Amino acid sequence: MSGTETEHLVYGLTKARIEALTDGIFAFAMTLLVTTLEIPEPQAILDPAGVARIIMVNFPDFLHYVLAFAVLAAFWVSHHMQFHALRVVDRRLIWMNIALLLFVALVPFSTDLAGDYPDIPLSSMVFEMNIFLIGGMMFLQWLHATDGRRLISPEVTDARIAIARRRGLVIPGVSLAGILLASLGVGASTLVYLLVPPLVLLADGPKTQETGGT
Amino acid sequence: MSGTETEHLVYGLTKARIEALTDGIFAFAMTLLVTTLEIPEPQAILDPAGVARIIMVNFPDFLHYVLAFAVLAAFWVSHHMQFHALRVVDRRLIWMNIALLLFVALVPFSTDLAGDYPDIPLSSMVFEMNIFLIGGMMFLQWLHATDGRRLISPEVTDARIAIARRRGLVIPGVSLAGILLASLGVGASTLVYLLVPPLVLLADGPKTQETGGT
Amino acid sequence: MSGTETEHLVYGLTKARIEALTDGIFAFAMTLLVTTLEIPEPQAILDPAGVARIIMVNFPDFLHYVLAFAVLAAFWVSHHMQFHALRVVDRRLIWMNIALLLFVALVPFSTDLAGDYPDIPLSSMVFEMNIFLIGGMMFLQWLHATDGRRLISPEVTDARIAIARRRGLVIPGVSLAGILLASLGVGASTLVYLLVPPLVLLADGPKTQETGGT
Amino acid sequence: MSGTETEHLVYGLTKARIEALTDGIFAFAMTLLVTTLEIPEPQAILDPAGVARIIMVNFPDFLHYVLAFAVLAAFWVSHHMQFHALRVVDRRLIWMNIALLLFVALVPFSTDLAGDYPDIPLSSMVFEMNIFLIGGMMFLQWLHATDGRRLISPEVTDARIAIARRRGLVIPGVSLAGILLASLGVGASTLVYLLVPPLVLLADGPKTQETGGT
Repeated sequence: MSGTETEHLVYGLTKARIEALTDGIFAFAMTLLVTTLEIPEPQAILDPAGVARIIMVNFPDFLHYVLAFAVLAAFWVSHHMQFHALRVVDRRLIWMNIALLLFVALVPFSTDLAGDYPDIPLSSMVFEMNIFLIGGMMFLQWLHATDGRRLISPEVTDARIAIARRRGLVIPGVSLAGILLASLGVGASTLVYLLVPPLVLLADGPKTQETGGT
Repeated sequence: MSGTETEHLVYGLTKARIEALTDGIFAFAMTLLVTTLEIPEPQAILDPAGVARIIMVNFPDFLHYVLAFAVLAAFWVSHHMQFHALRVVDRRLIWMNIALLLFVALVPFSTDLAGDYPDIPLSSMVFEMNIFLIGGMMFLQWLHATDGRRLISPEVTDARIAIARRRGLVIPGVSLAGILLASLGVGASTLVYLLVPPLVLLADGPKTQETGGT
Repeated sequence: MSGTETEHLVYGLTKARIEALTDGIFAFAMTLLVTTLEIPEPQAILDPAGVARIIMVNFPDFLHYVLAFAVLAAFWVSHHMQFHALRVVDRRLIWMNIALLLFVALVPFSTDLAGDYPDIPLSSMVFEMNIFLIGGMMFLQWLHATDGRRLISPEVTDARIAIARRRGLVIPGVSLAGILLASLGVGASTLVYLLVPPLVLLADGPKTQETGGT
Repeated sequence: MSGTETEHLVYGLTKARIEALTDGIFAFAMTLLVTTLEIPEPQAILDPAGVARIIMVNFPDFLHYVLAFAVLAAFWVSHHMQFHALRVVDRRLIWMNIALLLFVALVPFSTDLAGDYPDIPLSSMVFEMNIFLIGGMMFLQWLHATDGRRLISPEVTDARIAIARRRGLVIPGVSLAGILLASLGVGASTLVYLLVPPLVLLADGPKTQETGGT
């Protein structure tokens, strides 16, 4: 009994179950992104030029598909890093995680909007806001878990907690920059996400590559 | 062999497998909710005002998305609490659980209907009926499992069983109230679900917060 | 090494992985069934009578949704019974299982067709053919596994193998009856599936209820 | 701690979690293939001839559904063979795997295109390119893992690594042949995938059937 008590504070809800729901929603949201690529009714176009046009029309959608897939994958990687560091989960963390998943499941919609109207800043802004909400909720969740080491395993060092906090600010910060650019009327503001990989390396500091510092 | 006998009564179907199917259907139904948000054909609208209109049109859909996501998440949490308390599963419980999942998988449809016609009581009523059927089936399942402690682990106290029964009546009761309001012609009756969190706290009684009384 | 050798004959593919893919495809196909219920464009109908009409139009779709969900659930239960009895899996079984999943994933299409055109025998026939192919493949898979007890665990009795063979003929047989009726021009031939529960009880023989004879 | 160190190099991301995401995305992509089969609006056609026409129109879509399902299943089998041979996963492998999943999730789109326009070489070419990218990424992933036995378990023989490399070239090679044929204007070039099973047997060499040489 003490074995299960160290795993969770809410009766019946272990880390493993929350991770199973999380894996399912991430995998499904990432696969549903493909529905942002559209093929008009088969009858409409029957010549090679028509097929070429379908591919051309879907090109901005495809770029946003790649972007959204990569961002969701990065969040999925972070999520498992976070949960691996937890000793227990409490009720608040479960509901923060559900709010996080609510924004994850919205991504196919905001990606579709951004891909269909790439030149209109408002549609990019919706996408960036969505990503901001995911990243922000993930950051708050990490703050809640690490505040006074509330839910953290003893073997996790304070240095690792600090690195993960810095890293958790990268995507929300970049998203805010994108929202700002879009609100100034700049098109294609979703390009700001190209800054994420170098900024993550910066946040990690000098010597933590490959092994994640373990 | 006795190890597996304590896990299931139906040959080959352990709690773990049923939980895997349940997690899958919950995760997909929650993610499919995003398809209730609609983007008209890309060609139709190309100016910023058009994108703003898409967002406005989807606003009641979005509210119903949040509501349905939260309700399904609450049922998912309850489901794991229920199953954690089980010692064995029998054939009847498996088929009650399948009926439950049948109603869970319907939620993207009833949410779409309620979000597309927020002002028409009949569409809210369909949504509330759907949630009532999920909650009612979950309650019946719990009655079946706990009647004479038929399927319950020895360490689960009678007090916990009673709390879970009271709590299991909250969502069906609130849904009935919504159906009644809708049948009187009241619009936006889905707002009744805002009563769920305080009523759950009430049902839990004074001292069971955070740790679930374990 | 001998521990893993008793689990699988194909390098790296254990029963657990095949069950994970199977659970995923079943859960997803069962949830996708909801897309067979259709809501016309929101703009089209805005009065209560319009919403009532949407519900009426979807009624045969709903009946087919319930039927397909129940049939898939029954196959899912059988699948776990089959796999629980296996000692090892070989290459042929893996590919038979993949063919089975191919037909499982088709069910949302054939259900949609049968629900949209309930009065036209050809559409019922496509649904019945789909179910026949799932049931038939499942039966062949069981024959392959049990022939000379090729892949079967030692604790599984010959009596259980025989019961499972009889039971495995129920759904293919009922489907053939449905196909025959449809080919004679009888409408609503999918009603034949109401015969499945009593026939399964018959196939099980006198004393195997609830515990499955374990 | 050393136990988990032998499982992963990236903090918190074990083989098991990556396999869970991979199983999820494969299962959903394979099930989403069914959406490439299309039923026109129910009102449009109400006579038996109309239903027969729906089935006829979907015939090339169905053939591509079977092809894509089988190819994805073959990749899924290979993926588990690869991962079973790994001792650890590093950051590069995780991101190669995510790129792989990005192309896997695209398959419902490219299959839909190829099935809707079977006579236009460009649409077949998009499908073949998609499959080429999956197979190519899988091959690169295997090169990365096996180069200097970087991530490989000690019990995996060099002979097995070599067989898996040869086998990993079959689908990319066949896809290139298909792309070439399509670029020469040949229709139905996706038929080249019928060559995959015999070529895989060839790549396996004389004595490795059934048991995979274990």
